[in-house]
Amino acid sequence: MPTHAVPRPRLLTFEEAYPGSRKIYLDGARGIRVPMREVSLSGGEPPLQLYDASGPQGFDVREGLPGLRSEWIAGRDVARESGAGERDVLRPSTPPAVPLFRSPAPLPGRTTITQLHYARRGEITEEMEFVALREGLAPEFVRAEVARGRAIIPANINHPELEPMAIGRNFRVKINANIGNSAVSSSIDEEVEKLRWATLWGADTVMDLSTGRDIHETREWILRNSAVPIGTVPLYQALEKVGGVAEDLTWEVYRDTLVEQAEQGVDYFTVHAGVLLRYVPLTADRVTGIVSRGGSIMAQWCLAHHRENFLYTRFEEICEIMAAYDVSFSLGDGLRPGSIADANDEAQFAELKTQGELNRVAWRHDVQVMNEGPGHIPMHLIRENMDKQLEWCGEAPFYTLGPLTTDVAPGYDHITSAIGAAMIGWYGTAMLCYVTPKEHLGLPNRDDVKAGVIAYRIAAHAADLAKGHPRARAHDDALSKARFEFRWEDQFNLALDPVTARSFHDETLPAAGAKVAHFCSMCGPKFCSMRISHDIRDAARAGMDDKAREFRESGGVLYVPEHATLTGGRP
Amino acid sequence: MPTHAVPRPRLLTFEEAYPGSRKIYLDGARGIRVPMREVSLSGGEPPLQLYDASGPQGFDVREGLPGLRSEWIAGRDVARESGAGERDVLRPSTPPAVPLFRSPAPLPGRTTITQLHYARRGEITEEMEFVALREGLAPEFVRAEVARGRAIIPANINHPELEPMAIGRNFRVKINANIGNSAVSSSIDEEVEKLRWATLWGADTVMDLSTGRDIHETREWILRNSAVPIGTVPLYQALEKVGGVAEDLTWEVYRDTLVEQAEQGVDYFTVHAGVLLRYVPLTADRVTGIVSRGGSIMAQWCLAHHRENFLYTRFEEICEIMAAYDVSFSLGDGLRPGSIADANDEAQFAELKTQGELNRVAWRHDVQVMNEGPGHIPMHLIRENMDKQLEWCGEAPFYTLGPLTTDVAPGYDHITSAIGAAMIGWYGTAMLCYVTPKEHLGLPNRDDVKAGVIAYRIAAHAADLAKGHPRARAHDDALSKARFEFRWEDQFNLALDPVTARSFHDETLPAAGAKVAHFCSMCGPKFCSMRISHDIRDAARAGMDDKAREFRESGGVLYVPEHATLTGGRP
Repeated sequence: MPTHAVPRPRLLTFEEAYPGSRKIYLDGARGIRVPMREVSLSGGEPPLQLYDASGPQGFDVREGLPGLRSEWIAGRDVARESGAGERDVLRPSTPPAVPLFRSPAPLPGRTTITQLHYARRGEITEEMEFVALREGLAPEFVRAEVARGRAIIPANINHPELEPMAIGRNFRVKINANIGNSAVSSSIDEEVEKLRWATLWGADTVMDLSTGRDIHETREWILRNSAVPIGTVPLYQALEKVGGVAEDLTWEVYRDTLVEQAEQGVDYFTVHAGVLLRYVPLTADRVTGIVSRGGSIMAQWCLAHHRENFLYTRFEEICEIMAAYDVSFSLGDGLRPGSIADANDEAQFAELKTQGELNRVAWRHDVQVMNEGPGHIPMHLIRENMDKQLEWCGEAPFYTLGPLTTDVAPGYDHITSAIGAAMIGWYGTAMLCYVTPKEHLGLPNRDDVKAGVIAYRIAAHAADLAKGHPRARAHDDALSKARFEFRWEDQFNLALDPVTARSFHDETLPAAGAKVAHFCSMCGPKFCSMRISHDIRDAARAGMDDKAREFRESGGVLYVPEHATLTGGRP
Repeated sequence: MPTHAVPRPRLLTFEEAYPGSRKIYLDGARGIRVPMREVSLSGGEPPLQLYDASGPQGFDVREGLPGLRSEWIAGRDVARESGAGERDVLRPSTPPAVPLFRSPAPLPGRTTITQLHYARRGEITEEMEFVALREGLAPEFVRAEVARGRAIIPANINHPELEPMAIGRNFRVKINANIGNSAVSSSIDEEVEKLRWATLWGADTVMDLSTGRDIHETREWILRNSAVPIGTVPLYQALEKVGGVAEDLTWEVYRDTLVEQAEQGVDYFTVHAGVLLRYVPLTADRVTGIVSRGGSIMAQWCLAHHRENFLYTRFEEICEIMAAYDVSFSLGDGLRPGSIADANDEAQFAELKTQGELNRVAWRHDVQVMNEGPGHIPMHLIRENMDKQLEWCGEAPFYTLGPLTTDVAPGYDHITSAIGAAMIGWYGTAMLCYVTPKEHLGLPNRDDVKAGVIAYRIAAHAADLAKGHPRARAHDDALSKARFEFRWEDQFNLALDPVTARSFHDETLPAAGAKVAHFCSMCGPKFCSMRISHDIRDAARAGMDDKAREFRESGGVLYVPEHATLTGGRP
């Protein structure tokens, strides 16, 4: 890997990022072990177990992660063949009709090894078992959600390092972090660091959006070190292969790129197959035209050739390739609005409807699919996006970018978009693609990645709470109880970002004694409402006991305190 | 003023904070001049005028701001008397029935000088005129909203430095920033700096929540340098006066404090008059009890004396004092929930109902009133708060703290709460009280104040957009148009925080040339969707022109492009 002249400060370890926490493993059927983060608490409180996406820790980047899924996959209908690199490549025993990369002679017939295929025939895979344990759900429920297309488990057979996870609206709301170098900036090891950094703070999937040099090698390092699903936009690499000229793109170049990436182990592909020729003119009078890279590339191709988008015309063939490796579709929203002015317009919804049509084709091929969504949407227009997606796309998982609820705050778009993300997550969106503070301005660095991930964990968690997810609520309650009982250390350790919480407290009250004090710097010792509240609780409870005794002694006449009204409930 | 041994770096000036902007003044009737921020744009775009709360710039802190309202107030039914300090104090010509501070002999009869009083008798004050021009509304509309209690113009007759503003749901959504020293930390000049800093970034009102030493002097400096309404919680100072022992509070001490602060010029008072004795036991089984300082102090007083809250029993007398100086009520929500677990509970709603009762008493006294609201509320329970406030509180402006939509992210509560604030603002909340990243952890410093203000300007603006505010939309459109046309400087200058936007762009593309480049570091020159989109627009428009010519030449047969459907609209 390329090395930097000036070494960057090393990343925090899991233990440093989460003091008071440790990794534990839940044991399930078939020897499955699911990692969780367990937070130790004081004050006689039981430890709290939290969902953990940080992956195995302490492995050498050059070695990669262990192959958790290797044995599971080996037990399926796949053939191991030597790939171009050092690593073997798994392919279905009977390859699909489309010629595969490096094996140009297709064989007739077809073997399906997708999670959707297994789910439909009633089989609970190890991946489903893993997800069930991880989410606290019944394995059969997971299977049924996958079978009806309402959830996906992105899990390429060539990505054995993966800790399986599900994306669906009856699961915990997930978040995605985008990384990737571009022609202008960044390097491979920076990208692997961003992967580790993003998952350490809670990213559930990571998209590698590299567009620059070393695109294949960068992806290889990312995949071998990733316990979360990796998504890509294969079009970016295909475009590199034709020298960056959109008009020169061909189906063959694109197809080979799909296979190349599928054999590396990419778990989901963004495919902008819904950008139809006839929709392109609908964007001409927009304030911000087409803002999706993939969308604009395909629009340019369509116009240049005055032909229909080959991702659409070749969609069945794409499905064959996706099915062969169990790569999931993330159907791109190439015509998503890039400004408040363009929200919910004809172009956007025309493409969404086509996404729904394509979902049904993917399902016919046993391929898992989710739909990408906007973009820039003011709050009052968010709900319509979710409603239409549910209606037109057959309940396939929705995966939105934000949405940003205003355009006026470049530099703070993690916040403008966390607002929209929380709302659409509550309405039913299954995965939220993060936005960093650098959106619209530059490439995110490590701090930006963290800021984006934390903002989106907040949005996703707020959505889970609003949806009534029982595990979500337990986290809030544990933290609030710690807060009320002045267990400062517990409060920090339970935070999404314990290090920042502690450092903020240290700024005004650095002494160790302050971490056990029954007040804080906000009000000072005399005015602490929490402390007063404890006195009140004691007094009120004592008062109620007194009154209860009075009540009993007086022969049971109802006690009505001074000023009480009959509607007041408990006195 | 106390000085620091180590001088802090000076604040940014208006010009430094907003490059490309200048202060302009809109001229209205009666010589009224309303400041706006005008952003110059390139590319032949007209300049954009934005609401501006930053106040007059460049004045010496020790001199204070000019008395914009002095002449307006002098024309009313007030008497100028020499106060305790160097400054004269304005009192109504005929003082109210309650004995005033330093003038213990009350005179019979009463003069009313409140904005509500004038509005009700059909009079458009200079303050209403100012607000109308500032918001782009008709003066008569402003008067009517104030008259029916749906908006307030907090404007103490002893705060002539004020640039009047309105709080009401048919106006731009406002934000409040809390400052104030505490017993543990902070100093007077730091607080004045925070005031200037908060208003520079867009705070519409500022609350001085000081609880420590120099409470009177701090407030005096803040008021004399504030062009925005200043709010306080007089209970904090009253408690200081009785040595911090809640049980020792008396009506007399509190009353004198109200008068003292009213004569200094405080524009609105938080009064926790809705914390009734019988509601206190309703909090005993909460996860986080009572989290409002004022609420817990009054609850303690009620329990200690087993008597009703004197703020409630003396409410009519408080109204008399408020009316005398036109101080507006901000009826406190002393029983607001401090955790997700306690949201929308019986204690909270019992108090809200009492707030509604008290609104009607205040209105009877011609006193302006708004209601404070929560707190910690998960998204799905937010709407109920707004609905109940509208129903029970007679449409008086709602003024909420966030609400925070989850408890799990201390260190990031500006984000957890911006989500709730944006939503409740959209639902109809008139003013959003900011939360800084230090909430629950420590006192905000300058950076925290800015982070809180920007997060809340985002929330308020997103709410204005969702409510269909035409001026809000113009800001988004101007920025998005600049973005699409690669007018980078305009994009930065139109941002809520131009300095941060520019510095983020500089991080990856520092060269001046990059500020006119038709790409950015995110995608690099080859892949820029915006650039491609321009080509598409040109091609699509050219195509449409061609087709239009064809259409005309062919004798007007309807052109249906390849793949078009009849529902596709524009080809």
